[in-house]
Amino acid sequence: MARNPGPDASDGHPNTPSINRRSFTTTAIGGALAAAGASSARAEPEASTSPRPLPRPRMMQNAPTKPLTVAVFVYPGMVMLDLVGPQTILQILNADIHLVGETRDPVMTDLSLPVTPTCTLDECPRDLDVLFVPGGLMGSIACMKNQAMLDVLADRGAQARYVTSVCTGSLVLAAAGLLRGYQATGHWGIVEFLPLMGVTPVEARVVQDRNRLTGAGVTAGLDFGLTLAVLLRGQEAAERAQLILEYEPEPPFHKGTPALVGPERMAQMRAGRTWMDGQTREAALTAAKRLGI
Amino acid sequence: MARNPGPDASDGHPNTPSINRRSFTTTAIGGALAAAGASSARAEPEASTSPRPLPRPRMMQNAPTKPLTVAVFVYPGMVMLDLVGPQTILQILNADIHLVGETRDPVMTDLSLPVTPTCTLDECPRDLDVLFVPGGLMGSIACMKNQAMLDVLADRGAQARYVTSVCTGSLVLAAAGLLRGYQATGHWGIVEFLPLMGVTPVEARVVQDRNRLTGAGVTAGLDFGLTLAVLLRGQEAAERAQLILEYEPEPPFHKGTPALVGPERMAQMRAGRTWMDGQTREAALTAAKRLGI
Repeated sequence: MARNPGPDASDGHPNTPSINRRSFTTTAIGGALAAAGASSARAEPEASTSPRPLPRPRMMQNAPTKPLTVAVFVYPGMVMLDLVGPQTILQILNADIHLVGETRDPVMTDLSLPVTPTCTLDECPRDLDVLFVPGGLMGSIACMKNQAMLDVLADRGAQARYVTSVCTGSLVLAAAGLLRGYQATGHWGIVEFLPLMGVTPVEARVVQDRNRLTGAGVTAGLDFGLTLAVLLRGQEAAERAQLILEYEPEPPFHKGTPALVGPERMAQMRAGRTWMDGQTREAALTAAKRLGI
Repeated sequence: MARNPGPDASDGHPNTPSINRRSFTTTAIGGALAAAGASSARAEPEASTSPRPLPRPRMMQNAPTKPLTVAVFVYPGMVMLDLVGPQTILQILNADIHLVGETRDPVMTDLSLPVTPTCTLDECPRDLDVLFVPGGLMGSIACMKNQAMLDVLADRGAQARYVTSVCTGSLVLAAAGLLRGYQATGHWGIVEFLPLMGVTPVEARVVQDRNRLTGAGVTAGLDFGLTLAVLLRGQEAAERAQLILEYEPEPPFHKGTPALVGPERMAQMRAGRTWMDGQTREAALTAAKRLGI
């Protein structure tokens, strides 16, 4: 067999590898998550050979519930895992996920994997179930200074059912004035700067204060996502997502928080953050001034 | 300020939002993870305005160790979180990560986020520290039938320092003959099919058998990644990655494994998988025949 057949080299015979066929790709995606937890036993043997372009994943077709409307603000320097953890859970819950960028140009993430926005700031839907800002420190700091983005965040956040973030995303929500007078959390490296913008910082994995839901650093996106899942779809749907993603974590050791690693190692970590801490403080003070805090 | 300035609209002044500038993007990425855990206190205020294209993230520049050579096999239908969890950890450890695709065409993932391979099967490096296959069920089944991919996997896997997978990726390793005579795990939905290909299945979060390291479903990629981190870089480096990613999980409830949800709900989940289970079994039996099992 030839090593690198083109994307349409397959003849569609069931025994012919069709891994690069776009039609296969998208139906395979639906299958992978859907069948892991589909409540109907409907067999769809034609799914792997269907030529339809980009069909809706099958799980969502089966979902009895109206899709949630979610806006995720994406930006250069975003941490991919901050996005992908919550997005995976929201997708299982049946959500229309809009990736809102300043333009439609792809934004580069920490993993050098680009993410292409599906809409611009102006095109961001108005009636949101969830407004979500992932983290990405230097990128988050840039967002804190980006008035066009902050204006749209403030506008949509005022009406959204839930206003949410993970990691350094809470810096951006705070700079938009959306966490003023609220309790919130974020990555351990930035929680101390939240009070500059009128936020009561809480050292916790996930913090809910009225309709604000914020998560701690990076991997907290999974705990955040499941907490949000309960609020949006109820306990059973959230548990189903947990099982599909086999989220019963067993870290091989426990040095994942400042308290667990102790002051000596934290002093070392902090020493490497001096410049960035200064940038964060400056951006927070500028935002506070703009907000009249 | 105009709402949607083009990617080069910034004048480079430090107070001007530069969120879309490619130069900012990549330095920001290095900064975000690097400064969270850099061992040197070196201040680099020029980083946010440097015009260099795609510099190596700063953390990697600071790393005293030789980069690890990692090959990740990417394919249509891949589950993004299976990739992104381990990739984030490997990147913190300082790794040259090659995304190996059948062609260089982007492959579509479960989240409708495309991933562009950085090399083709023929171009996959030979001396690997890590060979890694993420999951994505229908996509994994297609890989199990893709002789060109299996040939390259078998070839590189015979020499790699560690041969690894998460989720349904173990089906692909097994189909390439790389898990024959080994203990291994995978997503709860597919572990039962591993014995058909000569694998001893183990229901555990992460399983190591000699130089084979396999993880359970999707989110197990984080526990897998930290276990691999210890093997590759030692305990202290692994703990540092855990702190940067704030990986001290607190799931809000515990229904993440078949044992925890109980037989009734599992029967429901299984009922939705009938067709896919049949496809998996057929692909496993075909692979076994090819391997002479």
